[in-house]
Amino acid sequence: MNPPVYLDYNATTPIDPHVLEAMRPWLGAGFGNPSSDHAYGRQAREAVALARAQVAALIGAQPGEILFTGCATEANNLAILGAARALRGRGRHVIASAVEHPAVAGPMAHLRDQAWEVTVLDVDAYGRVSPATLAAALRDDTVLVSVMHANNEVGTLQPIAELAALARRRGALFHTDAAQSAGKLPVDVAALGVDLLTLAGHKCYAPKGVGALFVREGTSLEPILFGAGHERGLRPGTENVPHIVGFGAAAALALRRLPALTERLRGQRDALHARLAAAVPGLALNGHPDERLPNTLNVSFPRVSGRELLARTPSVAASVGSACHAEAAGVSGVLGAMGLTAARAQGAVRLSIGEPTTETDIGRGADALAATWRALVAP
Amino acid sequence: MNPPVYLDYNATTPIDPHVLEAMRPWLGAGFGNPSSDHAYGRQAREAVALARAQVAALIGAQPGEILFTGCATEANNLAILGAARALRGRGRHVIASAVEHPAVAGPMAHLRDQAWEVTVLDVDAYGRVSPATLAAALRDDTVLVSVMHANNEVGTLQPIAELAALARRRGALFHTDAAQSAGKLPVDVAALGVDLLTLAGHKCYAPKGVGALFVREGTSLEPILFGAGHERGLRPGTENVPHIVGFGAAAALALRRLPALTERLRGQRDALHARLAAAVPGLALNGHPDERLPNTLNVSFPRVSGRELLARTPSVAASVGSACHAEAAGVSGVLGAMGLTAARAQGAVRLSIGEPTTETDIGRGADALAATWRALVAP
Repeated sequence: MNPPVYLDYNATTPIDPHVLEAMRPWLGAGFGNPSSDHAYGRQAREAVALARAQVAALIGAQPGEILFTGCATEANNLAILGAARALRGRGRHVIASAVEHPAVAGPMAHLRDQAWEVTVLDVDAYGRVSPATLAAALRDDTVLVSVMHANNEVGTLQPIAELAALARRRGALFHTDAAQSAGKLPVDVAALGVDLLTLAGHKCYAPKGVGALFVREGTSLEPILFGAGHERGLRPGTENVPHIVGFGAAAALALRRLPALTERLRGQRDALHARLAAAVPGLALNGHPDERLPNTLNVSFPRVSGRELLARTPSVAASVGSACHAEAAGVSGVLGAMGLTAARAQGAVRLSIGEPTTETDIGRGADALAATWRALVAP
Repeated sequence: MNPPVYLDYNATTPIDPHVLEAMRPWLGAGFGNPSSDHAYGRQAREAVALARAQVAALIGAQPGEILFTGCATEANNLAILGAARALRGRGRHVIASAVEHPAVAGPMAHLRDQAWEVTVLDVDAYGRVSPATLAAALRDDTVLVSVMHANNEVGTLQPIAELAALARRRGALFHTDAAQSAGKLPVDVAALGVDLLTLAGHKCYAPKGVGALFVREGTSLEPILFGAGHERGLRPGTENVPHIVGFGAAAALALRRLPALTERLRGQRDALHARLAAAVPGLALNGHPDERLPNTLNVSFPRVSGRELLARTPSVAASVGSACHAEAAGVSGVLGAMGLTAARAQGAVRLSIGEPTTETDIGRGADALAATWRALVAP
């Protein structure tokens, strides 16, 4: 039997073979602790420095502006809680969108528990925050705004450059979680105009267990974990050298593959959409039709539950929303925030493709899902 | 040229070949996100569950009492800040020893910044905390005591069972950082009587970038990072599957190798000591002569600086203290707390051996260091 067609690249990606090749020495003889003064340590330190430069290059940053963390969740926590802590003397108001990942919504909720005011920005039917909504929410005591670059469930892109300009004009820092966009689309910190930006290794063909935070030079930030002086005193803990090296290699690879990969993904994704739409009358696209990740297709199947549809299609590996199901068995908070009816939200399935996706995957995936749908709605 | 003799296993260890073998599938086809509902996810979830049971078995815990983290520093922060947060209604006094790693001293200092009272326990000339010292420091509002199992610089073992019993009798939680002892000596959470215990993957032949925290069932703990519901809601972030699997394999390996490995290390370590002592009149042992990690030899070379001795011996990779040099170029805080004279502390070198260490390594290492010392002190 073939393994299931993997259409869940937004949940996680495999490690690219080139990335694994780059990691290999650091899983073997290159085992030194980068903090050690001897040859083993020096070698590891240089490998981490190269990876830092590679990750920085992917987003147009300086190497000194990249901090490595244990995951993107930690990077989001460091950005939000670390900036809030650093700026608490200036104000105690923060802003986030209604469609953030739990890794942003979580620290925001924690700030609220700590007597901060948190404003949650509504989104439109496509999941977008309008600049006018942000402008109305900004206050003199707003210290930080966090709006994700691309939504993990529906793929909708936010107008980050406009939002960031508004926030910064009012003296607030701007953070964006770019875990889902980096490697799929160009991400440039200068063009976006952000102060803080989160990256996830395992969403772009590096391993799980490594993330990064871009911190624009001069940005106020305090650590949230305490220990020795790693990562400029902002993130203690012995560096995960193999994963950091892998992240660097994945960043270099992404830079080479873009923009051709973006185009290819968009073509395959749209072919998947067309094939499903032809087989499933009433199929509805969730998220923005154009301003969307090139690899993401969130569609509602009529008259069925997306969860049941997937459970009955073991030949396809996909999901009904975030793998980090904060809402447990309920309906996606993102689709709810977009104002979808309960029935449409219930029928939603997220199909996300990746660099290894083939035309065969597209055909097999679409046909299997359509066949299950037909069986479920048959009288 | 031969690579330098590695005598710095307390800074970090190589990944054991068996461990790497266990990790391999999870660096390749087994790339699923453990939170995903499909086959790829299930497979990864089962691998993490097995690793959790393996790590639990190493320390006599239940699998449900193990939380995986991104490093031991994070585990220490979670133990200390998470317990303090959970228990702040009962009191705002915590206790730690004067010889803790920065990963414990750091969160303690952070608590002090947050208006907690922190009592630092003096140690004796061997670096040990006496139960009487702890007994005198415990108060009705003490919520947590943290004393490391084995010191990273001198290897001295603390009387954890006695200390933990005292703390718990007064209603305080007891945490121990066992990053250096696990895999070198038997570590049993029931025998030690601790509530919280930290483990580090990369100190026992698993990769850098994974740690674990034992949390005794029923122990009050709040998360310090916020996001989705991973690790029973106590540590969000997509699991580092390959490293967690590696940590599990390393734990299983350690369990099989103990106690024979302990004996072998002790023999080799003492041979190294004897050979150095014969060549270097006045060589002084730092740390407890018996109650000490079997692999650790911290010795002061007379009339030289340990740092200079190592810098002039590139054929040996060792360190003057913690790789996580919190004290920068100064003298080790651990040796200072033990009351060593500045001259003796200055001459200290930490030699730490490991499972791959050979008799040849011992001979080459000792002879090279002795030769450098002779050259330095020659008139």
